[in-house]
Amino acid sequence: MQKILYTNSVSEAIRRLVDEIKPSSVHIITDTNVQACVLPRLGLDYPVIAVMPGDENKNLDSLSKIWDGLIGQGATRKSLAINIGGGVVTDMGGFAAATFKRGIRFINVPTTLLSAVDAAVGGKTGINFEGYKNEIGAFAPADAVVISTNLFSTLPSDELLSGYAEMLKHGLLSSAADYADLLSFDILDADLDRLLPLLEKSVKVKEAIVEEDPHEKGIRRALNLGHTAGHAFESLAIRKGSPIPHGHAVAFGMLVEMILSHTNEGFPSAELYRYASYLKNQGYGTPAITCDDYPALIELMRHDKKNDSPDHINFTLLGQPGDIRIDRTATEDQIRAALDIFRDLME
Amino acid sequence: MQKILYTNSVSEAIRRLVDEIKPSSVHIITDTNVQACVLPRLGLDYPVIAVMPGDENKNLDSLSKIWDGLIGQGATRKSLAINIGGGVVTDMGGFAAATFKRGIRFINVPTTLLSAVDAAVGGKTGINFEGYKNEIGAFAPADAVVISTNLFSTLPSDELLSGYAEMLKHGLLSSAADYADLLSFDILDADLDRLLPLLEKSVKVKEAIVEEDPHEKGIRRALNLGHTAGHAFESLAIRKGSPIPHGHAVAFGMLVEMILSHTNEGFPSAELYRYASYLKNQGYGTPAITCDDYPALIELMRHDKKNDSPDHINFTLLGQPGDIRIDRTATEDQIRAALDIFRDLME
Repeated sequence: MQKILYTNSVSEAIRRLVDEIKPSSVHIITDTNVQACVLPRLGLDYPVIAVMPGDENKNLDSLSKIWDGLIGQGATRKSLAINIGGGVVTDMGGFAAATFKRGIRFINVPTTLLSAVDAAVGGKTGINFEGYKNEIGAFAPADAVVISTNLFSTLPSDELLSGYAEMLKHGLLSSAADYADLLSFDILDADLDRLLPLLEKSVKVKEAIVEEDPHEKGIRRALNLGHTAGHAFESLAIRKGSPIPHGHAVAFGMLVEMILSHTNEGFPSAELYRYASYLKNQGYGTPAITCDDYPALIELMRHDKKNDSPDHINFTLLGQPGDIRIDRTATEDQIRAALDIFRDLME
Repeated sequence: MQKILYTNSVSEAIRRLVDEIKPSSVHIITDTNVQACVLPRLGLDYPVIAVMPGDENKNLDSLSKIWDGLIGQGATRKSLAINIGGGVVTDMGGFAAATFKRGIRFINVPTTLLSAVDAAVGGKTGINFEGYKNEIGAFAPADAVVISTNLFSTLPSDELLSGYAEMLKHGLLSSAADYADLLSFDILDADLDRLLPLLEKSVKVKEAIVEEDPHEKGIRRALNLGHTAGHAFESLAIRKGSPIPHGHAVAFGMLVEMILSHTNEGFPSAELYRYASYLKNQGYGTPAITCDDYPALIELMRHDKKNDSPDHINFTLLGQPGDIRIDRTATEDQIRAALDIFRDLME
């Protein structure tokens, strides 16, 4: 299992890990934004490999540049990579490390709430390929993940909201009490020190699920809650030329899937109203969709990587918070009806 | 552990495996030579992805073409790849499968003796990158390996000799008796049906070592016997514009390392003479080196991926056949002396 350190002293934690691991050399993998804005604060004295930021650069070209950088900096099989950045950096840096000389060790240091609670933990690494998200990759756990809310102090509100949506997901998967705690915390008006224990609890939900099923043969699919509909919202927004943050799409997707959970699995209707109000009050906005978008959304859900066949659409649903039902399907009619209710609730 | 099937009915074995695995689709990965010469004999009715043959095409371009082919043929996470070919195909096809959608299942069907006894078994996959051999890759065991000596019936003598060198290596690692059996078998004048049990025994030697240490942290380095000097011979021959087969280079490398084993570990001198005569009688030829080549050879040994630091050169040596000594080093003077003796013995 990955070692996860929750700390307010990132540099010290990294130096201690390097002392423990005793690598033949250390290489920081990051993007040019983090290189300019975060690395100077950390004061680490290791060579840096910086790729261009953004999901559009999470590709084979950037990956080759990382491999090149490792070769140029003289990395051996006993070297250590430290991925410092958001999900793009930890996914791609992790995959570069997992495949360089058939695998060197690596540490993830997430610089966004979203990557701390999601991408940096759990061993999924990879790149996009030919327009498909995370099409090429490997399951490769980091040797350690260093999580510090200090790194989030300069994040814009939308970044915090986006990451917090994945925390809400973990709360919904965990229990009614954990979920309620999260709904009563205001991430936009928060002391980041108070966020750390909530974040730790949230990451532990993911860890427990990943430990049980690292290669997503079964229960790990629980973590897809909100993502079948969410990915469709996210892709549609990109097509329309007005992208929305990943977490916002997942937040909306969770409402759609709560509605399906209500109609198909008896999920309590009161929770639908409570969650929809939360989203509106907290400032997630609302996706600008009409019934004309339904065919595109359903088509996107149908082509989700999580489906084993194009004949049905796979969802993770809930009986209630903490009561997980994986491998559920819904008909097109049910999805249309859920989207109708979704639009009503978000009005 | 990988399932290894020794059979004279390749197609039947493949069909049975497909029935067992029940993949959502099946994709043959091969090279254009095997596609033209071997596939028609097998009569399998699956879509084919064929790359250009040869180690010079074991690169990122060919790998991308395989990923493209899998996408184009509609492969899902439950698909099965069947790699049919020599080491280039099984290494690269295995790596493509190990990283497509974070890993799909694959079967190896080696069409050369060398790949049957070496590349196809043991879970090492990868590609060359920027002139470095197998620089990018992963440890990913095949679901099954189908080994049939029938596929070797059209191989030229040099191909058989090259593969047989790796069998001799396994014999040396196993026991004096196994090694003696191999020396008394004439691979060039052999009934391939008689080869099958010897091959099975040889593969089991590798399997046992790999099972003990899949990620080469320790005893798996035993399999590098002959390869520190062997890779240097192989690379030097390429530089000089007259490449020699991999197994021939390993066969010569084993003699150099037997000499080092003799001087440093008490390996019996009688074995040196017996092995050198065997090489000459069996037709392995002799590498055209002089003492002017020593600096280049030593430099190549120094840059071998198996070294953790450039300060020493790592060898696997033997006390006697079956008595393995990993993580041994030799000085430059010792290596020069061994190369002198090597040239005398091979004259």
